Amino acid sequence: MTLASPAAVPQPLLALRESLGASAVLFGDEVPQRNRNDWSTQPPAHPLAVVRPVDAAGVSAALKACRAAGLAVVPQGGLTGLCGGARPEDGWVALSLERMVGIEEIDPASATMTVLAGTPLELVQRAAAEAGFYFALDLGARGSCAIGGNLSTNAGGNRVIRYGMARELVLGLEVVLPDGTVMTSLNKMLKNNAGYDLKHLFIGSEGTLGIITRIVLRLHPQPGCTLSALCALPDYDGVVRLLGAARGGLGPLLSAFEVMWPDYWQVVTERVGVRDPLTGSARHGHYVLVEVQGTDEAIDGPRFQRWLESLMEEGALADAAVAQSVADTQAFWALRDACAEFFPTLGPHVSYDVGLAVKSMDAYVRACKAALAVRIPGCESVYYGHIGDGNLHLVAWVPGLSVEQQPKEAMDEVIYGLVREFGGTVSAEHGIGTAKKRWLGHARNPEEIALMKTLKAALDPLGLLNPGKVV
Amino acid sequence: MTLASPAAVPQPLLALRESLGASAVLFGDEVPQRNRNDWSTQPPAHPLAVVRPVDAAGVSAALKACRAAGLAVVPQGGLTGLCGGARPEDGWVALSLERMVGIEEIDPASATMTVLAGTPLELVQRAAAEAGFYFALDLGARGSCAIGGNLSTNAGGNRVIRYGMARELVLGLEVVLPDGTVMTSLNKMLKNNAGYDLKHLFIGSEGTLGIITRIVLRLHPQPGCTLSALCALPDYDGVVRLLGAARGGLGPLLSAFEVMWPDYWQVVTERVGVRDPLTGSARHGHYVLVEVQGTDEAIDGPRFQRWLESLMEEGALADAAVAQSVADTQAFWALRDACAEFFPTLGPHVSYDVGLAVKSMDAYVRACKAALAVRIPGCESVYYGHIGDGNLHLVAWVPGLSVEQQPKEAMDEVIYGLVREFGGTVSAEHGIGTAKKRWLGHARNPEEIALMKTLKAALDPLGLLNPGKVV
Repeated sequence: MTLASPAAVPQPLLALRESLGASAVLFGDEVPQRNRNDWSTQPPAHPLAVVRPVDAAGVSAALKACRAAGLAVVPQGGLTGLCGGARPEDGWVALSLERMVGIEEIDPASATMTVLAGTPLELVQRAAAEAGFYFALDLGARGSCAIGGNLSTNAGGNRVIRYGMARELVLGLEVVLPDGTVMTSLNKMLKNNAGYDLKHLFIGSEGTLGIITRIVLRLHPQPGCTLSALCALPDYDGVVRLLGAARGGLGPLLSAFEVMWPDYWQVVTERVGVRDPLTGSARHGHYVLVEVQGTDEAIDGPRFQRWLESLMEEGALADAAVAQSVADTQAFWALRDACAEFFPTLGPHVSYDVGLAVKSMDAYVRACKAALAVRIPGCESVYYGHIGDGNLHLVAWVPGLSVEQQPKEAMDEVIYGLVREFGGTVSAEHGIGTAKKRWLGHARNPEEIALMKTLKAALDPLGLLNPGKVV
Repeated sequence: MTLASPAAVPQPLLALRESLGASAVLFGDEVPQRNRNDWSTQPPAHPLAVVRPVDAAGVSAALKACRAAGLAVVPQGGLTGLCGGARPEDGWVALSLERMVGIEEIDPASATMTVLAGTPLELVQRAAAEAGFYFALDLGARGSCAIGGNLSTNAGGNRVIRYGMARELVLGLEVVLPDGTVMTSLNKMLKNNAGYDLKHLFIGSEGTLGIITRIVLRLHPQPGCTLSALCALPDYDGVVRLLGAARGGLGPLLSAFEVMWPDYWQVVTERVGVRDPLTGSARHGHYVLVEVQGTDEAIDGPRFQRWLESLMEEGALADAAVAQSVADTQAFWALRDACAEFFPTLGPHVSYDVGLAVKSMDAYVRACKAALAVRIPGCESVYYGHIGDGNLHLVAWVPGLSVEQQPKEAMDEVIYGLVREFGGTVSAEHGIGTAKKRWLGHARNPEEIALMKTLKAALDPLGLLNPGKVV
């Protein structure tokens, strides 16, 4: 593929550059490296152009120009997606929201914040905190990812059990439709049943139905205290009982319930080298990080302590350690976050993000481990996840093989084949993009996929907005 | 309109009766009175038939038969809707889910319940409680309304501030599409991002895009205790500050925040005759019922008491009464629920259900009261609502006039005209149906309404499912 020379650029894009300014529309070689790919493991593409508008009117003009020229468009935020949703194909136009950054308004009475879609998540979190609120979405890429991208994949993260997915943190949207129509729905009310709730079409559809340009976010009160404990249990039945006890005894204060299977624990404590905070040297069946966000440490601290003690007295826990300080809590989370350190320790590996009903999860893990061993001799795998949300992460690898040599296709077949068998989902939080499109039928039936295609055809009849992604 | 004789019934419906059984398909005079109307104040209609299937296959067969005969279909649940969404027009087919009642499964590990859509809300609540869980949706019509109808209007109720609208209590759906396709999406996972989240299309669209037949509901832990207080404040600024203090100090335990304006208070205590639990005889600017659902009264009781005391010490409250017993809590809620007793006390009146940003609400109330007085001499009005959710209820009437004589059109113009001016919504929780369709444009802009119509045309190209409702 040769790079486009300005001479080969269609007239509507030249007119767009004229209208939005030279820095807003870059062609061919001018397209920065970052706009050629996302964090999925595909090679960089050669887009025809990147357009970087500063407002919805600019996004609208860009979509109209691309429509006039018959060019495919991919919306881009922080480009941290893992499934190729924001990656252009050669010859496409990348529409980047990187210049649409900022907080427009914080309304303390409604507990809402209105932001531009290109604003990095971390900036949203910080602005909320400065206004005395808490923005509950959090994930590893917070410094790079854009809030618009978080919505386009309906991001999850660690505190879904308490605050819900990104979808549940949104009250209103401004969206530019594929034909360039700017639809402004900047609702601030928790209750609004005047006609269809259109925002849900655009949240989680990975930029295939419209481009989100502004967002009204729901804010929560800042937690007064954060408490955590690391619990060891003999078996998965004990984990399910602990989840029930946490829901009942901690109620809505429960903010995370992270489960680690023993092979994960072993890799993290013995190979990555994170300190094991449990006192005994015994190996356990499962490990759970339980976190509570309370309003007042003087009240919620003793509540949490008593809850744990009663579980210990009942014999529900094989072992437990309670964080006595912020440093302890960080040390507990280091165990859970150690998966980010797998590359230097384990070498090349493949990461998965599946979902299952809570009760099926351990059976799935056992089936998966066994099937991987049979299908791919020497394959190792470890399991961990946000169990209360039905979300299981797993990492699989064959030691000694390079990234390219890892038998990803065979792994996919085993892992997604069992997802289908167990009635789970192939994507709990990363999305489908192009990377998982082949497997969508393992999690959605033909009627569901047909309806998705009906929606895509209704909103984007020319098929120019992020075509070929998701469905 | 003459009633249909079996001879006038189209052949596909006769075949449907043959296939589903005589008790499942009733024609003309056989159609029970209840299937001819909902709770909106319109005259009963003369549907051609009512179909009462027992499963999704029966619903599908009914939709296919109506399609073959070119007949319009209205889905019916408990028929408690207030806006005409479930009312047939003359000659339509009413498709009632009254025989699709029952709990299919409770999954304690996932905290989910799978139910048939015709199941009354109260039965859902009771089954959850018997399994040790709490189903958080609650509203006055709980004994009559069906859970499928609750979803079709995305019902709200008193505890939205804590648990969200009906939408947020749903994880999966089975839906029959207008062409008879049965789409089964009975997801149980909080996180599932494999393609578009289709359930949101059907929730809140008042049976115009598909007919919900089965539902996976999200259950919550049963609250360990319920605490409440009635607070009096000098002005609306104080109410907004109290809401902020409740969000911050009570965190996610806050389960209701109900505000009553002074005219409402006066009507309820002086005319309806509910006992005033506040000690002083002073009249106040606003009254707020604050409710907390905690996990443990020994911990959360003192927390709530201290929170109130600190507000009293700061001078934030003009007066307050804390419930000392379940009877006290019931007495507080009697003030809020007294609106159900308005008919015998105030006589004929018109009820509204609007939504506004929290900060605009009092200004709206003042503008509305003034404008009604100017436009309709003698008009009285009272205001109350779920303020934390942005939901304001209001009741307006001209004393001495009959239901038919009430100047509803002039009231609508004033009330919805100001909603438009203040950027609010004409329906916070009752829906649009036919009753509010004229006013949809006051809450949604042309781009939003055009997209709603695009969706309707894409899913129901023949326009036979609840035509003319909502959009």
